[in-house]
Amino acid sequence: MSIYPKVFESIFDDGILKKAKKMHLAEFEFVNIRDFTNDKHRTVDDCVYGGGPGMLLKPEPIYKALDYVKSKDNDVFTVVLTPEGKLFNQQKAKEYSQKKSIAFICGRYEGFDERVKLLADEKISIGQFIISRGELAASIMVDAIVRLLPGVLGNKESLKEESFESGFLEYPQYTRPAEFRGLKVPDVLLSGNHAMIAKWRKENSQKITTREVSDG
Amino acid sequence: MSIYPKVFESIFDDGILKKAKKMHLAEFEFVNIRDFTNDKHRTVDDCVYGGGPGMLLKPEPIYKALDYVKSKDNDVFTVVLTPEGKLFNQQKAKEYSQKKSIAFICGRYEGFDERVKLLADEKISIGQFIISRGELAASIMVDAIVRLLPGVLGNKESLKEESFESGFLEYPQYTRPAEFRGLKVPDVLLSGNHAMIAKWRKENSQKITTREVSDG
Repeated sequence: MSIYPKVFESIFDDGILKKAKKMHLAEFEFVNIRDFTNDKHRTVDDCVYGGGPGMLLKPEPIYKALDYVKSKDNDVFTVVLTPEGKLFNQQKAKEYSQKKSIAFICGRYEGFDERVKLLADEKISIGQFIISRGELAASIMVDAIVRLLPGVLGNKESLKEESFESGFLEYPQYTRPAEFRGLKVPDVLLSGNHAMIAKWRKENSQKITTREVSDG
Repeated sequence: MSIYPKVFESIFDDGILKKAKKMHLAEFEFVNIRDFTNDKHRTVDDCVYGGGPGMLLKPEPIYKALDYVKSKDNDVFTVVLTPEGKLFNQQKAKEYSQKKSIAFICGRYEGFDERVKLLADEKISIGQFIISRGELAASIMVDAIVRLLPGVLGNKESLKEESFESGFLEYPQYTRPAEFRGLKVPDVLLSGNHAMIAKWRKENSQKITTREVSDG
């Protein structure tokens, strides 16, 4: 749900989202909040009560847009993208990948009228930074969620995931050529010795928790 | 820098990025890594040395693509998007907004040959989750950075920012109508009493740090 759903076009016509749609593993609908306005100018924003800079997204068109979404699936899980929400992470992606349908309400301008947030089953934030368009955050979440749906990734890639979710970052990986601009692939990886390779990889994996600490 | 820069089209033809380009406040170039391959199939990926699922992005085309970028600005700041990088945040957005030019190297598939990461002036991650396309993370960062460039936001919006960056989330905000589906705007915001409004807003702001703790 967006006031400018056109931004989704090239994002959803690419990569795993395109594939998931083509294979009927996921369905996407872009709901234009402007379609639920009543005035000639299709107004979606207005000034802030009590004064303040910028414009807020008005509640009515968004409530009506969600009424429309709920007319198709009354149990849709509604996510409002807002800075005070819970931080999105891989656990949340996994949780959302189990849901039958999710509506993402995307903000622009200075944000939403507070009453819009009452629509949320969950308020979510993509990170500790300010962006101008909730659509980008929603697209990232949809990407993270859809890649977890059965059949979207090949079996090979799916296997890889488990190692990440166990709390380790990946070990360094190399592909051809074995030497490039003087930079060599570690000999052990070319050795064919599977036990040595496994040992090297284990030693060179990095715990995610280590990073979290070092980032302060 | 991407193997599928088409995904950027609708993202950059929208909102503040479109505005920044039109007003000559920022320039964007999408570099297709495939243009720097030598073979007929324009191969950008290959298998993992030592075995393992999926495909990695090969080093040569990316090195050559960055050579091209550096031929235009040898001092370009090079960011590699990778899960073990530093978490992107508002401080980082601010820091990057001071740079003359930045190259974002975006991954797909299972990631990069480790030697690609040697190109990085900084390795950056958008969050604690797995996505299939670095392009989405780069787009979010560019959005967060460009909105900080002078002239991109109106003066009114710029003011708002300072309050966020001081470590507080915004207070709840409301716009018309004063009552909607039984949900009323708090009386104080309609009162015209600026001192009372300021007090209410201060009391109802939320520290970002509070959230960080509660998210565990």
